[in-house]
Amino acid sequence: MLFRSALGSELRASRIAQSRTLRDVAREARVSLGYLSEVERGQKEASSELLAAICNALNIQLSTLLSDVTSAIAKSEKATLAVVKPIDEKISDAA
Amino acid sequence: MLFRSALGSELRASRIAQSRTLRDVAREARVSLGYLSEVERGQKEASSELLAAICNALNIQLSTLLSDVTSAIAKSEKATLAVVKPIDEKISDAA
Repeated sequence: MLFRSALGSELRASRIAQSRTLRDVAREARVSLGYLSEVERGQKEASSELLAAICNALNIQLSTLLSDVTSAIAKSEKATLAVVKPIDEKISDAA
Repeated sequence: MLFRSALGSELRASRIAQSRTLRDVAREARVSLGYLSEVERGQKEASSELLAAICNALNIQLSTLLSDVTSAIAKSEKATLAVVKPIDEKISDAA
């Protein structure tokens, strides 16, 4: 799972949890609606300055957001490991 | 504290902890030495793909790196709050 995908999902989740529109958050963060939409869909990397502005507009701390992103990525890494490990075991069984 | 500054510091700390050179990690991650150096100094945003490649070259999981980045940012947010709060209190005392 790429960092920007996990980040986008968490940003979107935060916005939806506050029942806010893309337009509202984009205006408050002073970014274009298209940019915010692309960031939320994991299609564009958010620069650190704009990430800070989006967190500010959402009234969330960057550390809180990153903590959620870290959890999502850790979960995805475990899921990948759960798929890869049995294959490794099969290979070593076969050897 | 900007995300890329915290990320760069943690990447550098991971590399130094392994006694590895910029040249070695850059080669393994297939990024230029100049790019990795700029990312480590917080001067350039790392794309999600290159961040994954750098983590791979350092043999660290992205979630482990992000967890350290999150802690550093949380610490910096608390330090900022400790400076801002007494000023707020002074202002409300004066009012």
